[in-house]
Amino acid sequence: MSLYVDLAALLGTRIEQGLYRPGDRLPSVRALSLEHGVSLSTVQQAYRLLEDNGLASPRPKSGYFVPALRQMPALPAISRTAQRPVEVSQWEHVLELISIPPGRDQVLQLGRGRPDIGGPTLKPLLRSLSRLSRRQDLNSLTYGGIHGDQTLREQVSRLVLDSGCRIPYQDIVITSGCHEALSAAIRAICEPGDIVAVDSPSFHGVMQALKGFGMKALELPTDPLTGISLEALELALEQWPIKLIQLTPTCNNPLGYIMPDAHKRALVALAQRYDVAILEDDVYGELAYSYPRPRTIKSYDEDGRVLLCSSFSKTLAPGLRIGWIAPGRYLDRVLHMKYMGTGSTAQLPQLALAEFIAGGHYEPHLRRMRSQYARSRDLMIDWVTRYFPPGTRVSRPQGSFLLWIELDDTFDTLRLNRALLPHNIQIAPGCIFSAAGKYRNCLRINYAAAPSPGIEQAVRTVGETVAALLAQA
Amino acid sequence: MSLYVDLAALLGTRIEQGLYRPGDRLPSVRALSLEHGVSLSTVQQAYRLLEDNGLASPRPKSGYFVPALRQMPALPAISRTAQRPVEVSQWEHVLELISIPPGRDQVLQLGRGRPDIGGPTLKPLLRSLSRLSRRQDLNSLTYGGIHGDQTLREQVSRLVLDSGCRIPYQDIVITSGCHEALSAAIRAICEPGDIVAVDSPSFHGVMQALKGFGMKALELPTDPLTGISLEALELALEQWPIKLIQLTPTCNNPLGYIMPDAHKRALVALAQRYDVAILEDDVYGELAYSYPRPRTIKSYDEDGRVLLCSSFSKTLAPGLRIGWIAPGRYLDRVLHMKYMGTGSTAQLPQLALAEFIAGGHYEPHLRRMRSQYARSRDLMIDWVTRYFPPGTRVSRPQGSFLLWIELDDTFDTLRLNRALLPHNIQIAPGCIFSAAGKYRNCLRINYAAAPSPGIEQAVRTVGETVAALLAQA
Repeated sequence: MSLYVDLAALLGTRIEQGLYRPGDRLPSVRALSLEHGVSLSTVQQAYRLLEDNGLASPRPKSGYFVPALRQMPALPAISRTAQRPVEVSQWEHVLELISIPPGRDQVLQLGRGRPDIGGPTLKPLLRSLSRLSRRQDLNSLTYGGIHGDQTLREQVSRLVLDSGCRIPYQDIVITSGCHEALSAAIRAICEPGDIVAVDSPSFHGVMQALKGFGMKALELPTDPLTGISLEALELALEQWPIKLIQLTPTCNNPLGYIMPDAHKRALVALAQRYDVAILEDDVYGELAYSYPRPRTIKSYDEDGRVLLCSSFSKTLAPGLRIGWIAPGRYLDRVLHMKYMGTGSTAQLPQLALAEFIAGGHYEPHLRRMRSQYARSRDLMIDWVTRYFPPGTRVSRPQGSFLLWIELDDTFDTLRLNRALLPHNIQIAPGCIFSAAGKYRNCLRINYAAAPSPGIEQAVRTVGETVAALLAQA
Repeated sequence: MSLYVDLAALLGTRIEQGLYRPGDRLPSVRALSLEHGVSLSTVQQAYRLLEDNGLASPRPKSGYFVPALRQMPALPAISRTAQRPVEVSQWEHVLELISIPPGRDQVLQLGRGRPDIGGPTLKPLLRSLSRLSRRQDLNSLTYGGIHGDQTLREQVSRLVLDSGCRIPYQDIVITSGCHEALSAAIRAICEPGDIVAVDSPSFHGVMQALKGFGMKALELPTDPLTGISLEALELALEQWPIKLIQLTPTCNNPLGYIMPDAHKRALVALAQRYDVAILEDDVYGELAYSYPRPRTIKSYDEDGRVLLCSSFSKTLAPGLRIGWIAPGRYLDRVLHMKYMGTGSTAQLPQLALAEFIAGGHYEPHLRRMRSQYARSRDLMIDWVTRYFPPGTRVSRPQGSFLLWIELDDTFDTLRLNRALLPHNIQIAPGCIFSAAGKYRNCLRINYAAAPSPGIEQAVRTVGETVAALLAQA
């Protein structure tokens, strides 16, 4: 990781935490250079990065300032978790989110984790799919090997270099989306009854997998800017026979934070000390607004105990159902579980993806989406600030396209979803992001789609419905 | 089921069992009409069906005869199973079958369950795939609903009418191949430690799923012409707390038999009496050589206890990874398990398949493949008879494209596979088709590919290698 990125992250955290307020002058380039023992150009690079992220704005001859016009709502609270293993519920609410009831395909699904798939930089992928699917001589119609297509595995091996990992293609397995990777990994490591430590709030797919396979989730207190509390994790490791730690540390779903590098490194050390495996979901990692992208936990792994998984569902298109896993020392067991679940993975989308990446189309697409999502984040936070009742707390996503909104403690977002039915709008209720059904007063919304008056109106409707429900209470 | 099909099945079984020998004259049309109380034209239809299956040949003015020229090898023995639940092993041998080791993509994989994907009747499917994948406005790039695409579910609902089932599309779930359907169904019904009764030999994918999820398999004695022994099943149901009966009753993999309708009906009654669920794998059912296709067990189901699953992997192309399940009363649990395993299924192949079937391309393709496979079966049995050592026993597939070969009791087909390595030929060793690792003296080979001198030579090489290994012993 470059020095300027570390410095920008440090300054960014101070701004987010309110050490510098909107309109405040930020430290001079010279002062920071002295304070941190880095060159002037490193500080300048750091400021440019902050500028890209909307956290600093330059004024000619006066230096950098915290942008004055943005009125930032408060952050969500650090989660207060039960700190004991619980069985997972909430399936019926997840089912509601992922189903498309007959006659309701016009619903604006603000709650789902869908990227924007309308951009022009996706076109080369469609062309590859179309050309390859005409060719009957290719292997795309038959079973592929259980590991996945070698050309795609080689491309993934190249991509993970950017997150600090050297993983030969032989150690990578292609899966039916990251969903299958997570599911296979959990079953490869855990038996029914085993305890899995998770961030909280946490991806509902993992929560449901734990439920389905009979494992227990131990939710860790999680800071909305830096992720799980390592102190709490260490206490939990002392107290419980934890088998696996499952996290989404980079552009977390749903909170949007990026766990600092120092925490990632310390986490690996902790896992080594207690001999626990780590399952790292990096599905949003390439959508971090900062460049270069953050390191993975896996990049600090020394003995193969980190299982890294990801997919092209958030960066390109979920409908492809192509993910992957680098399972480290657990390769054999993960392969077995993958075989049991679905056999081999579809060939055609693998071949098209490999062609798309090898053709140099992936990076330009990522650049485009990152900057679109970063702009939309600011707009969405503004809309929520404007249209939701005062006191609403909002996350500060550092990547991806998901916003976490915390309402009054007594609020029930399941009721909100029902009240939104006549408006054809659906949000993701907070309770599905918790094993114990916490976060009923929270919701997740998606800002992937290019901003439009229709979406602004929908956010306004959600905000007004929240206010109306609060007034009734 | 029509009368003439029942009659043809009866006569066919008598011929297969040797009641009528090659060259024998078969009963006259009039005699059969009297004996079975059916019309002359019904008997004539039955004989035409037998003729299509190569089991009867007409001589002008003399009636029907058992074809004289075909020298049929003996059938495999009825399996002698342990009749107690065992834990499943053999994963390393399955892995060998489904992996493509680097530099070995030229291996002739005689052992795999792959259909022929080179035929012209598949072209409309490729055209649909190609056209749909160019369209960015479609939903093919995003998450579909968890149940699968409605247009495809409606087509499946129409297709299953041919097997005697009325299943509304709302009760059908699309999966990532039949593999995922089986896996989700097993987890929906069973807990770790539960006992599942299976046919024996049995599909290795199910064996491995049972292993992975911690269930025990109870292998039932299975007749190579009619399937599992219902008497043995009843005894087992008396003796053990069986949770699920898993079978491939129509064009069984690997034995190729079709369980008689009366057995299917009796099986459902037995399952009702002992309150057990039945998981019916119908993945080869549409490839039965007789027309119309046989009924499913599901068609006798009265209270939703049969979970019927299938796919387009054997009839069209496995690379699509599109299967489906009609889970009866277990719909909710199966949906949950499907979500845990992979989330939603890829959209593009679903849309293309729905278009292909709705466009009337599916039936002509099935007709073509059925008659190709029926011809190839006869040729393959001839080759095995010619090139394998005397005493080799061979199955009589009534559909699909898989042949089961039984060698001398002492023979080891794992050794055979190693000896075939230098010849770049791979067969499926029998042990992977048994939970307990039985059938080491058996192998499965595939006759899907259009017959060629190359394949004949490969069969000859396998036969000669078997003879050489037997001579060494």
